[in-house]
Amino acid sequence: MTKRPLILVTNDDGINAPGIRTLIEVMDTIGDVVVVAPDSPQSGMGHAITLDSTLYVERLVVNEIETNEYSCSGTPADCVKLGIKQVLDRRPDICVSGINHGSNSSINVIYSGTMSAALEAGIEGIPAIGFSLLDYSWNANFEASKKYVKSITENVLKHGLPNGVVLNVNIPNVVEKDIKGVKICRQARANWEEEFDKRKSPQGRDYYWLSGKFVNLDGGEDTDEWALENNYVAVVPVQFDLTAHHCIQDLNTWNLK
Amino acid sequence: MTKRPLILVTNDDGINAPGIRTLIEVMDTIGDVVVVAPDSPQSGMGHAITLDSTLYVERLVVNEIETNEYSCSGTPADCVKLGIKQVLDRRPDICVSGINHGSNSSINVIYSGTMSAALEAGIEGIPAIGFSLLDYSWNANFEASKKYVKSITENVLKHGLPNGVVLNVNIPNVVEKDIKGVKICRQARANWEEEFDKRKSPQGRDYYWLSGKFVNLDGGEDTDEWALENNYVAVVPVQFDLTAHHCIQDLNTWNLK
Repeated sequence: MTKRPLILVTNDDGINAPGIRTLIEVMDTIGDVVVVAPDSPQSGMGHAITLDSTLYVERLVVNEIETNEYSCSGTPADCVKLGIKQVLDRRPDICVSGINHGSNSSINVIYSGTMSAALEAGIEGIPAIGFSLLDYSWNANFEASKKYVKSITENVLKHGLPNGVVLNVNIPNVVEKDIKGVKICRQARANWEEEFDKRKSPQGRDYYWLSGKFVNLDGGEDTDEWALENNYVAVVPVQFDLTAHHCIQDLNTWNLK
Repeated sequence: MTKRPLILVTNDDGINAPGIRTLIEVMDTIGDVVVVAPDSPQSGMGHAITLDSTLYVERLVVNEIETNEYSCSGTPADCVKLGIKQVLDRRPDICVSGINHGSNSSINVIYSGTMSAALEAGIEGIPAIGFSLLDYSWNANFEASKKYVKSITENVLKHGLPNGVVLNVNIPNVVEKDIKGVKICRQARANWEEEFDKRKSPQGRDYYWLSGKFVNLDGGEDTDEWALENNYVAVVPVQFDLTAHHCIQDLNTWNLK
């Protein structure tokens, strides 16, 4: 008899978000699930960790029965650290994060709490995947995501992932029959054209809201943006060795003393 | 006459930290300096941005004279976005972040607010450098850093940086005569062995403090950790295209449907 895999589930939208409820539902069909997720939304947290403050972790109790779900006062990366070191009895076989309400494709990977959780697990040597659906709304429909979340997770459990690599999976916001399949992609070159909405507080003080427009600067057909625009699920292998090896030779010609 | 470069200065330890005061002092010898920095310490913020809250930016006034320094209620990445889009009249020629009180070498780059500011500028297409001194204390001695901060900044202004690349500079905490020079390095493979210090609040609730021990898992002599241990200034070119290109071929053999 094969042992069921132990699966650590987290996200950045908070433990009550519909996206993580869908992820838990799918993971329950694959293995033994433990959830450690933020007690409140943490979008845009990047890879923040809590150094200057205390962390709370509360086991959820439903109808007087202890669940395998824990809500945490920290960031997504904190949840993974606490999950691995404090909550779980043994190392998880995989960590999955999401399903995020909204895209984490291309440059969004840098700002993403969902992906920071997956990266944190990867740093700990645990195979990890971040899942995101291209619908920011709380009422997003995660039906079409289920099949792909399951298939990709099962493949990672079967094949493993190379050291230092986690998967960033983004799912187009269309009904299942319109999804054309899965593409392995590179991260598109893209950025946000920020706009700041300047307002005045009731006390007369200027303040700003950050907003912006996403701009894809990359015409390549091997990118996550291309895949998503063409109704493919985009899978980008992501690494946390950020070294730009291709510049080392050039930098060595500089006169640095 | 050559125009003096416009330099955007920021950090993650807050606008009053000794490290940024040293950085400003050095940058004043190179160009026209504008500072937009957090009004309070932001260490461990990773690439967090402020999406759900308002941002304040206050110009500092000293002896009734307006300075070129702005304190911001947001994260280091927010400071760079606001600096470029709201505070500055034209695009800066370079953005420098730091000097951080404490290391941002190897895997710390992922958690670093200092480096997230540099990366944010890089995403905007602006040459950028994050500087860190290997001394966490507020009273760190930045004397020996000055020469290297100046030389590396001048080199970046002269040569530029390839698109998509910023520099992560870490400086050993020794006196100037003991620094052996500058090494261009790759990011060492390393991680933190976390420990959670579990305590009970006066209200009887369990809480945790995150702490941990840094572990270098990399024996290479071309890494930033090796350079720092051997009293070299470590310069790692860092990229924000996180694609692990070397796995794409393998992933394409998976049965994903």
